[in-house]
Amino acid sequence: MYKLYYAPGTCALASHIALEEAGADYSAVRLDFKANQQQSQEYLKVNPKGRVPALVTDQGVLTETPAILAYVAQTFPKAKLAPLGDAFAFAQAQAFNSYLCATVHVAHAHKGRGYRWASEESSFADMKRTVTKSMAGAFELIENGMLKGPWVMGDQYTVCDAYLYTVALWLEGDSVDLKTLPRVADHMKRMSERPAVKKVIGEQQAKAA
Amino acid sequence: MYKLYYAPGTCALASHIALEEAGADYSAVRLDFKANQQQSQEYLKVNPKGRVPALVTDQGVLTETPAILAYVAQTFPKAKLAPLGDAFAFAQAQAFNSYLCATVHVAHAHKGRGYRWASEESSFADMKRTVTKSMAGAFELIENGMLKGPWVMGDQYTVCDAYLYTVALWLEGDSVDLKTLPRVADHMKRMSERPAVKKVIGEQQAKAA
Repeated sequence: MYKLYYAPGTCALASHIALEEAGADYSAVRLDFKANQQQSQEYLKVNPKGRVPALVTDQGVLTETPAILAYVAQTFPKAKLAPLGDAFAFAQAQAFNSYLCATVHVAHAHKGRGYRWASEESSFADMKRTVTKSMAGAFELIENGMLKGPWVMGDQYTVCDAYLYTVALWLEGDSVDLKTLPRVADHMKRMSERPAVKKVIGEQQAKAA
Repeated sequence: MYKLYYAPGTCALASHIALEEAGADYSAVRLDFKANQQQSQEYLKVNPKGRVPALVTDQGVLTETPAILAYVAQTFPKAKLAPLGDAFAFAQAQAFNSYLCATVHVAHAHKGRGYRWASEESSFADMKRTVTKSMAGAFELIENGMLKGPWVMGDQYTVCDAYLYTVALWLEGDSVDLKTLPRVADHMKRMSERPAVKKVIGEQQAKAA
């Protein structure tokens, strides 16, 4: 039995979808970011970083989306959520996830988390103004090569697809025009039609209501 | 035969050390960042991101430090550079590397690469001033828990150690006092004494001369 801590609208959605696609026995616990629950003493015992996702397993707690996604894929090999038998292909999947984590997510985070890297209000405003450009630039590489199609890694659906879908959901709020990214938009549409994705989105929305 | 593209002072050092520790047959190609070689048409064919590291393999090119490190560990299992037989322990190593990539490296990058996330000179200056605080905060978590000791993952040396050493080398330039991080400082000392690390540092310095 796994327990996933998440908050709506965050990258934790990728791990949530992966657990569902894997057929894992899990529960999803919603943290209220508006009430700053991720910084509560109780939660900091689970994840001292004060962030989501955190996946509680029988062996301990895992954090960081790329690590959780690879763990789910390796722990549920029958679900075929990563190319586990091929170190090069597995590394390509890891590289994709690392790019989403360290470049795409970081670009997006400058809209509302500028205090992590600066102190002045004028800097925060500048960062906010720059998000559309940095997100569009990052997604240009995805649109024009990294997304092999139809799925990220080609014919086989993997955890990379759950992660790409998760960060692509931020594009509209970041004022990036999806019409400039037709392959990404097509990928989002196909993702939204998957039963596991529908179920997870539905569950997150029901708990938020 | 692998080919690693690197530049001195960058995170590519981690992959360089990992290849050396693995006993891999490789060559290391130095890019001149001052001449902007990483943005040359020739190099963009290797890595469209215009960054290092890039590892050329017989199967294609790999990018992103966490992905390269896991690939080297999986491809050279005898070197025991990651806990390959235990999905949870492997995920812990991945989580550590992901934190260095997406939090520590990103914090450091705000010193000189602010243009990725903002446009104004005043923002760049603000970001530069904030680097000491953000790097110190990130390393506090490493010092007080993530670094199990004596090596990152405990008794077994892994690719995480090469990566931690690489980013810890930035602390002095980022004005973080190593005296506040005695366990990290001790780790750096032991890393610097490893034959593979000495050899790689020596090679990078010789090529830079």
